[in-house]
Amino acid sequence: MSTSNAEVVSVPSKLGLIAEPWSPGIVASLNGQEVKLVRLEGAFVWHKHDDADELFYVLEGSFRMEFRDGSSSVRAVELGVGDLIVVPRGVEHRPVADDACSVMLFEPAGVVNTGDGPASGQTNAAVRL
Amino acid sequence: MSTSNAEVVSVPSKLGLIAEPWSPGIVASLNGQEVKLVRLEGAFVWHKHDDADELFYVLEGSFRMEFRDGSSSVRAVELGVGDLIVVPRGVEHRPVADDACSVMLFEPAGVVNTGDGPASGQTNAAVRL
Repeated sequence: MSTSNAEVVSVPSKLGLIAEPWSPGIVASLNGQEVKLVRLEGAFVWHKHDDADELFYVLEGSFRMEFRDGSSSVRAVELGVGDLIVVPRGVEHRPVADDACSVMLFEPAGVVNTGDGPASGQTNAAVRL
Repeated sequence: MSTSNAEVVSVPSKLGLIAEPWSPGIVASLNGQEVKLVRLEGAFVWHKHDDADELFYVLEGSFRMEFRDGSSSVRAVELGVGDLIVVPRGVEHRPVADDACSVMLFEPAGVVNTGDGPASGQTNAAVRL
């Protein structure tokens, strides 16, 4: 592969191209994985990814990741700028952002954001930025 | 898997645990990949990874990624905070940091930092932080 294919990507600049919440944009692909940027706003749908671990890394603002085991108790953790969390495959979760928040995601290529949850206005295919 | 296994990791706090340059620390594992933090200082050894694409994302400072194709011409790109680059597998490269720089790496688990380059004091196994 030519070395000319390795280009610098400005994450803040790419983030500026995303206007809508829950609309992931792909900024890098490697080893069958993708790096995506997404804006969080409000509560996302409960869902899980049966075949994909998913990493969230906070770039701007803060959000709360909620987990539930079956339908019973909910556990929540708070993340601010510079924090990351890995949501293991098969674990039901939903991010909730009371204020504006931007995150970087690392996950396998092709993951749908709402996983096994119902399709809705929050279901958006990732586009290459 | 229990939801209790998903813990928040503070990247700045973990970075504070790394004293030496070129000594990667692992902060997350997912999908056969690892997220590492590393401090760059000076010029690294020329090397490549035949089976791994490697992502560098700048957290602090700046550095220059140099590429060469065979032994002839060198191409260099500059990265500052918020920039990322993917070095494709098989491409000879070396990071060079004229000043202090900290980066996040995303690559397959088990990658050795000096790749196919000669083992040296810069060759360090990644440790879990």
